[in-house]
Amino acid sequence: MAKKNWKALAKALRKDMKALMGHQPATLQTEAVPAAKKAKPVSPLAPASFPALPRIAGVEFSAVEAGVRYANRKDVMLVRLAPGTAMAGVFTRSTTRSGCVRDCQDKLAMKVPADAGAAIVVNSGNSNAFTGKVGDEAVAAVTGGVAQALGIPASRVFSSSTGVIGEPLPYDRITAKIPDLVAGLQEDAIEMAAHAMMTTDTFPKGAAATIQGEGGEIKIAGIAKGSGMIAPDMATMLVYIFTDAKISAANLQKLLSRNTDETFNSITVDSDTSTSDTLLLAATGQSPAAELKGPTLKAFETALRGVMMNLAHQVIRDGEGATKFVEVRVTGAASDSDAHKLALAIANSPLVKTAVAGQDPNWGRIVAAIGKAGAAAERDKLTIKFGDIVVAKNGWRNPDYKEDDGAAYMLQPELVISVDMGLGKAKRSVWTCDLTNRYIEINADYRS
Amino acid sequence: MAKKNWKALAKALRKDMKALMGHQPATLQTEAVPAAKKAKPVSPLAPASFPALPRIAGVEFSAVEAGVRYANRKDVMLVRLAPGTAMAGVFTRSTTRSGCVRDCQDKLAMKVPADAGAAIVVNSGNSNAFTGKVGDEAVAAVTGGVAQALGIPASRVFSSSTGVIGEPLPYDRITAKIPDLVAGLQEDAIEMAAHAMMTTDTFPKGAAATIQGEGGEIKIAGIAKGSGMIAPDMATMLVYIFTDAKISAANLQKLLSRNTDETFNSITVDSDTSTSDTLLLAATGQSPAAELKGPTLKAFETALRGVMMNLAHQVIRDGEGATKFVEVRVTGAASDSDAHKLALAIANSPLVKTAVAGQDPNWGRIVAAIGKAGAAAERDKLTIKFGDIVVAKNGWRNPDYKEDDGAAYMLQPELVISVDMGLGKAKRSVWTCDLTNRYIEINADYRS
Repeated sequence: MAKKNWKALAKALRKDMKALMGHQPATLQTEAVPAAKKAKPVSPLAPASFPALPRIAGVEFSAVEAGVRYANRKDVMLVRLAPGTAMAGVFTRSTTRSGCVRDCQDKLAMKVPADAGAAIVVNSGNSNAFTGKVGDEAVAAVTGGVAQALGIPASRVFSSSTGVIGEPLPYDRITAKIPDLVAGLQEDAIEMAAHAMMTTDTFPKGAAATIQGEGGEIKIAGIAKGSGMIAPDMATMLVYIFTDAKISAANLQKLLSRNTDETFNSITVDSDTSTSDTLLLAATGQSPAAELKGPTLKAFETALRGVMMNLAHQVIRDGEGATKFVEVRVTGAASDSDAHKLALAIANSPLVKTAVAGQDPNWGRIVAAIGKAGAAAERDKLTIKFGDIVVAKNGWRNPDYKEDDGAAYMLQPELVISVDMGLGKAKRSVWTCDLTNRYIEINADYRS
Repeated sequence: MAKKNWKALAKALRKDMKALMGHQPATLQTEAVPAAKKAKPVSPLAPASFPALPRIAGVEFSAVEAGVRYANRKDVMLVRLAPGTAMAGVFTRSTTRSGCVRDCQDKLAMKVPADAGAAIVVNSGNSNAFTGKVGDEAVAAVTGGVAQALGIPASRVFSSSTGVIGEPLPYDRITAKIPDLVAGLQEDAIEMAAHAMMTTDTFPKGAAATIQGEGGEIKIAGIAKGSGMIAPDMATMLVYIFTDAKISAANLQKLLSRNTDETFNSITVDSDTSTSDTLLLAATGQSPAAELKGPTLKAFETALRGVMMNLAHQVIRDGEGATKFVEVRVTGAASDSDAHKLALAIANSPLVKTAVAGQDPNWGRIVAAIGKAGAAAERDKLTIKFGDIVVAKNGWRNPDYKEDDGAAYMLQPELVISVDMGLGKAKRSVWTCDLTNRYIEINADYRS
C-alpha cells in the first residue's frame, strides 16, 4: 500500500474508533449490585478460546453458585491437592492487604509438612479486605470448614477473596456450600474454576506447559483472574499454578519468587495495586519423572516462567477497557532500578495511555514520562522507537521519521514502544494496555 | 430533605451524569492541527469571572497573534519589568525539561544585577521540549531578539513555551512579531497575557493580594496556565507573579521556594509531570512602602502564599475534563514524607478518581490507594471521612455509616476526603480533580 493511503486509512480508522468510543452503551453494569454478569463484550485482545490445559495428577477442582454477590453464576471455587503437595506463594505488599492474604502468608511461613495434602478456596464478588476482625473470622470459618470437610489441617487450606473492598464477607453463604464443593471435585474442571473467580474480567485465563523430565513428562497448568486494580507489587491478582513435578517446597518457592519480578511484577493496567494479589504454586509430585535437578530443573524453570508470563500477559489483554496490548521496552538504562522506573513511568502515564487509545504516535508524551521517572536520563542520548521505526534520537526528532509511518504503526492492536537510554546496560520490559472511555465507564459506575 | 429522597436524587443525578458522559460531542478538537480554539465548554469548576487584578507599578504586558500553532488567537505574550526588578524562579525537575526551562535556570544562577530591568516572553502551541540543539537556538533567537528590542541584556530575558512536545518551534514567527509586542506594551493588559498562554485551559487564571507595608500599599498579582500534564515536581505549569514590593532577589527566591511545596507541588491532575513547569516571581520595588522586613515581610509571605495557593487551585479547577474539585487531607501520618506519599497515592489513583467522577462513595478504593503508597499504615488505626462523615474506623466500616449519606455527599462539586493514619503528627493536603470520559476525549485526540 502506498504511503499516502496509509494516512487516509489511519484517519478513517481513527474516526471509526472515536465513533466507537463515543457510542459505547452507557448502561452496562449500572446496577448497584450486579445481578448475573450480563453478556459483557469480550476484550478485543482476548485469545480465541480457553486453551486445552493438561490434567495435573493429584489436583481436583469444583465450583458452585454461592450468591456471595453475583446471582446466577458460579462464584466460589475449590481446589483439592493430594497428600505430598509442596506449596509456594507470593503476595501483595500492600499495607492494607486482605485477611486472606495475611492468612496465606502465615500458613506458608509455618512450613507444615506436605503429607497432609492441601486446598485452595476462592470466592469472587467480595475481597474481604479492610473488614477488620470480622474479616479475620470469615477467613477462619471458610478455611476451617474446608479443612474439616476434607480431613486436612486448617493450616494447609489457603484462601483468596476478590471483589468489592470494605464490605463484610457474608461467609455463611460460602460455608453452606462446602459439602457441594467437596462433592463436585473432579480433575477436569480447571476452566470452571477459572470462570468462578472472574470479576470485571471478560474471559477466563489459562496457560500450560509440558517438559520431558527424567523418566516421564512433567506438566504445568495455571489459571488467573485480573482486569483492573492491576499494578502488582511483589505478586499480583489471583493466580494459581499447578504441576505434578517432584520438588521441595523450598526450591518451589525459590523458583516462584525469582520469576515473579519480570512477569507479574512487570505488568500494569492502571497503577493501582490491589489489596488481594495472590500467586500460589502447588507441586503434587505425582509425575512419573524423577525429582527435579540439574538440566530438568532448569527446563522446568523456563517452562514455569513461560506459563507465568503467558498468564500475566492475559491479564493485560483483559485490562479494563483495553483495546491495545503494549510492551514498553527500556534498554541502556544506568541501573536495573532505573530501567524498571522508566518502563513503569511510561506504562502508567495517563497521557501516553490515552494517546495509544487514540492511535496517536505522540512520542512527546513518552519524553515527558521519561523526564518524570526519577531515573538518570540525558536528552541527547535517548532513542525512541515505535516497533522498528526510529522516532527520535540525538535529543530530537529523527529527521528521517515520517509521521505517516508512526500513525500507521499505531493502528495495530499490539505495540512495542522502545526506549534506549544510551547510558548503561540495564534493561526491562513492562506490559500495559491503553486507557479508554470504557475504563472510565466500568469504574465510574456506582460501586463496580 | 429526608434521607430517602437523597438516595433517589443521587440515583437520578448519577444517571444524568452518565448520560452526559456518554453523549459528549466526539468531534471536539479533532483537527490534527487545531485552528482557532472553538467554543470549548468552560470547566464547571471555573470561577465566575477573571478577577480584577491591581496594576503593579513597573510591569507592562502585551500579546499578539503569531500563529505558532493556533490561528486567530493571541499566542505570544511579553512582560516588561522596570529597571530594579528582582527575579526569582522555581522549575520542573524533569530530566527532559525544555530548553527554555534550562535557559531560565542558567540566567537566574548568573545573579545579574537588577538595574537593567527584565522581560518574560511566553508562547503557547509548542513547548520547544526535546527539540535538541535547534530548540536551544530557538530560545537564544527569541530571548536575544527581545533583549535587543528592549535594550536590556539577554541574560535578563526569561522565556517559556507550552504546547506539543518534540516539534521544532517555528521561532521566526515569534521574532517577526517582537516589534508589535514591544509597541503594544501597557500596564492594564495582564488578562490578555493570561489568555495568550492558554492551551487546553478553558479559562484564564489570575489572583491578587494587597497588604499594608510601611509607608504604603504593596500589591501582588499573578497569572497561571495549566490543565493537563499536571503533577508538579518542584514547580509547576506556567505561573508568573508580579509585585511592587522592595525585596532582594535572594529573599524573594527564599520566599518562593519555601512556599512552593505546599501549593503548586501539592496539586495533581493526572500524575504526569510536565517538561515545561515554570514559576517566575518578579518584584519591581516600585511600591511607596519601605523594603520588606519583620512583620511586613511576614505579611507579604502570607499574602504571596495565598496568591500561589489560589492559582494552584485554579489549575485543578481547570483540570482536563474535571467535574469535581477534591481536597485529599492526610493527617496523623508517621512522617511528612509519608503524609505526602499517601495524599498523592489517593489523589493519583485512577480508581479513586473514576469513583469520584461516578459520584460513588467507594471508600474501599481509598483503602487500596493507602495500601500501595509505600508509607507506614496500620489497618486498625485508620479513619476515613467524606467531609464530616466518618466512613471507616478501627479497621473496618464505621457501623454508624449510612451509604445514603456518603452518596449524597458525593453529589457536591467540591469534596474533602480525609484520612487520619493514627500514627503520628504529620499532615499534608493535596488537591486534585476527577477522571472523566472528557479527559480521555481530550487526550486520545490525534495530537492534542
